[in-house]
Amino acid sequence: MVESKKTKDMLGRDGLISVDKAIEILTAQLNTVPLINETIPLSEAFDRVLAEPLTSPENLPAASRSTMDGYAVRAADTFGASQSMPCYLDITGEVLMGEKPVGELKKGGCYKIPTGGLIPTGADSVVMFEDTVPVDDTVIEIVKGVGSGSNLIKTGEDIAKNAKALPAGHLLRPQDLGLLAGLGISEVNVFKRIRVAIVSTGDEIIPFTGIPQPGQIRNINAIALAGMVRRAGALYTDYGIVSDKQDVFFAALEEAIKDNDIVLFSGGSSVGVKDLGERAVENFGPPGILVHGVTLKPGKPILIGSSGNTPVFGLPGHPVSALVCFDLFVKPAITLLRGISTNPELPILTLPATLSRNINSAPGRRDLVRVTLQHESGKWVAYPILGKSGSISTLSRANGYFIINEESQGITENSNVKVYIYQ
Amino acid sequence: MVESKKTKDMLGRDGLISVDKAIEILTAQLNTVPLINETIPLSEAFDRVLAEPLTSPENLPAASRSTMDGYAVRAADTFGASQSMPCYLDITGEVLMGEKPVGELKKGGCYKIPTGGLIPTGADSVVMFEDTVPVDDTVIEIVKGVGSGSNLIKTGEDIAKNAKALPAGHLLRPQDLGLLAGLGISEVNVFKRIRVAIVSTGDEIIPFTGIPQPGQIRNINAIALAGMVRRAGALYTDYGIVSDKQDVFFAALEEAIKDNDIVLFSGGSSVGVKDLGERAVENFGPPGILVHGVTLKPGKPILIGSSGNTPVFGLPGHPVSALVCFDLFVKPAITLLRGISTNPELPILTLPATLSRNINSAPGRRDLVRVTLQHESGKWVAYPILGKSGSISTLSRANGYFIINEESQGITENSNVKVYIYQ
Repeated sequence: MVESKKTKDMLGRDGLISVDKAIEILTAQLNTVPLINETIPLSEAFDRVLAEPLTSPENLPAASRSTMDGYAVRAADTFGASQSMPCYLDITGEVLMGEKPVGELKKGGCYKIPTGGLIPTGADSVVMFEDTVPVDDTVIEIVKGVGSGSNLIKTGEDIAKNAKALPAGHLLRPQDLGLLAGLGISEVNVFKRIRVAIVSTGDEIIPFTGIPQPGQIRNINAIALAGMVRRAGALYTDYGIVSDKQDVFFAALEEAIKDNDIVLFSGGSSVGVKDLGERAVENFGPPGILVHGVTLKPGKPILIGSSGNTPVFGLPGHPVSALVCFDLFVKPAITLLRGISTNPELPILTLPATLSRNINSAPGRRDLVRVTLQHESGKWVAYPILGKSGSISTLSRANGYFIINEESQGITENSNVKVYIYQ
Repeated sequence: MVESKKTKDMLGRDGLISVDKAIEILTAQLNTVPLINETIPLSEAFDRVLAEPLTSPENLPAASRSTMDGYAVRAADTFGASQSMPCYLDITGEVLMGEKPVGELKKGGCYKIPTGGLIPTGADSVVMFEDTVPVDDTVIEIVKGVGSGSNLIKTGEDIAKNAKALPAGHLLRPQDLGLLAGLGISEVNVFKRIRVAIVSTGDEIIPFTGIPQPGQIRNINAIALAGMVRRAGALYTDYGIVSDKQDVFFAALEEAIKDNDIVLFSGGSSVGVKDLGERAVENFGPPGILVHGVTLKPGKPILIGSSGNTPVFGLPGHPVSALVCFDLFVKPAITLLRGISTNPELPILTLPATLSRNINSAPGRRDLVRVTLQHESGKWVAYPILGKSGSISTLSRANGYFIINEESQGITENSNVKVYIYQ
C-alpha cells in the first residue's frame, strides 16, 4: 500500500536547501526575465518604477528667487551695516509675486520682495525684513549687512539643466513626483505593474463565506496572500479554489501562468497536493522546479519553479508557513520583477529587544520565531509565541519575529534579538 | 507703505510654539471628532480599521487535525518504542482529506492520516512517517513513541469560541484577514475611510503640465501631498489651483471643508497668502486657528486650525517644509481619524548611523536634517544635505533625516544619530 516513492516523499523531501541558496537560485532565474515598460502620466506614477534614468530638461528654479520676505539689494551697498551703524537704501521698486520685476536695481536702491519673488536685475542678495527698520515710504534702514547670494535660491540651484534627476529602477515616492512636477516632466516611462495569480487548491478547502462540513476548512490563505501582494506593490487576481484533480488543476495553472507575471498556489497541505504541485510545475517548465523545500521553520515545504519567464510558487498549506514564505521569497521576487533597484540598498529596519526565555533551534535550519512585544523598564521585551504553523491566530497576535540562523542551536533568555516588525 | 501690522507679520509670527505642544493641541481637538463606521465585506477590508472588538464565533480548528503526514494512534500503544525496541500497529483505516474518518480507532490499531486530516475517534496523537517503517500493507513498525497530543492541533487550539479575536481600532493586515476568514467572519464593522482635500493656492502657481512665465512656478506640492495621503491610508481629492483672491479662495475652502474629513492648503509662500490662510481658517471656525507657527526647521510657518470637526492645515509653500509638516502633523491626524489604536504602540524604526560632519542648530528649535546614507567600513554614515527648504531635489536625494532637538545647539562629527528612513 505504501509505495517506495510515496514513502520517500512522506519521509521528507530529498534535497532541502538553505534559504540563502534558494534565494540565489530564484534570483538568478528572475534576472533572466525581460521587464516590460510603458509611458504613463506623472499623475498616475505614484509607487511605480522608472524604466530609464531621467535628466533635468531645465533649470529649477528657472530664475533666481528670494527665499525670504524682505528687500532685494546689492550686497556691496550693505557692507558693514549694523545696529550701531546702519545704512540707508532708497526703495526704488517692488517685486510682485508671479510677475517679472520692472526695471533694474541701481546702486543705493532696493526693491521690496516677497518670498518666492524673482530677484530683479542688478540685485545679488536679499535683506530680511527682520534686519530692516522702515524710515518712511521711500527709505529703509538696514541694520545687518548681507553677503552676495544671501537669502535667495539661484537659477538651477535646486537642480540644473541636464543634471541627473533620478536613476532607472527608482521607485517613485511622493517627493520624487514633486521633483518631476517641478521640472515639468508630465509623462514617465515606467515598468509595467506586476500581476500575481493566487490559486487555492485542495478538495478540503471551501470559500471563507461557507460553512465547513467535518474535515473541510475555510480558505484562509487566498485573502491573506491578496493583502500581501497589494502591500508589495503588485496587482492580484484570485483564481478561487481549484479542484486538486490533475486535469482541472493543470488547466487552471496554465491559464494563470499565461495571464500573470507570478503565480502562487497554496492550500492543500497533504502529500497528494504537494505531488500534484510538483508535477504541475515540472509540466509547465522549462525550467520547471528550481527549489523543492528549504531548511526553514516555518516554511519548509515551499516549492519554487518557473514556467518560462513566469515564476511559480507552491506555498505551504499552513497559513503561517505560507505567509512567511511570501515574505522571504515572493516579496523579493515581486520587487525584482517591478524593476526596483535602490542605491544604497538599505537594510530592513528592526527593533532591538530582549528575549524573555530560552529558545532552542535545530542546527542547519533557519527558524523565524514570532513574538509579541512589551515595553518593560525602558526596554522592549520579546515574548516568543509557540503556536503551531497552522495557527493563523499566532500570526495575527504577533508584533513581529526574530531569526535564529542555521549555525545556532538556540538563543538564551535575556539575549538581545532584532525583531522584524509586522506592519 | 509698510504698515505696522504687515511689518510685524513679516518680522516673523508671534506665538510660535514647540512641535510637541502643537501635536498636543491638535490631538486634543481631534479626540473630540466622532468617528463614523460602516459594515463592509471582508474581501474589501484590507488596510481598514475595526470599529468594534471581534470575538471568535466558533472554535478554530472546528475539530482536532493532524499537523503531519503519518499515522493516527493511541499514544499509550507507542509507549517506549525506539529504534532498538520498535512496536507494531495494525493499519485499520485511512483518513481522507476533507472527509470525516470512518469508524473508531481501537487499541493496537492505527489510521494512515495526511497533514490536515481529522483525528479519528479513539486516537489522541499522530506518529510522523519519518518515525515509522512499513512492514507490509497491513502493519507498520513504530520506531519512536509519541506522547498524547503529539503532532495534532486540537479543537479551538488556534482560537477558541468566544475568545477575543481582534480589538477595536485594529488595522486589518493580511494575517488578520486570514484569521477572520478562518473564523467565517465575512463582514466587518470598520471606520469610514478618511477623505483629504488638497487645495493649492497662490497666483504664481501653475499646473505642472504648463510652461511657467517669468515669476511663475509649477505646482509641486499637490502631487507630492497626494502621494503622502495615499501612503497614509486615506483618500484624496485634488481641488486644483485656486486663486488667492479672498472670495474665490474662501468659496473653494468652504466646499473642501464640507466634503472632506481633513483639508490641506498650500502653495503661496508670500505673506499675502499666509494672511489669507489665517483669515480663512478663522472665518471657518470655531474653533478656528489652533496653531500658527512652530519652532521647527524646516516647517516653521505651518498653520493648524479646525472648522468644526474638520481639521484644516495651512502647509508652508516650500515643498520640503510642506512634506515635513505632513509627516509630523497631518499623518498622525489621519491615523487618529482612521481610528487606529495599537497596543503596544511601537516606535518608528530608525537606522543607526554616524554623522559625517558637525551640524549646528539654534537652541529652542527642532531641526530635521536630511541625509544621504553610505555604507562605509561596516557602518552607515549619514551625510547631511544642506540645501534650502525650497529645494525639492534635496528631498528626492535624501535617504532620510535625523532630528536635532530643542535643547541641543548642534551635533558633532562622528556622533551616532538615528536616521528616520524615507520609504
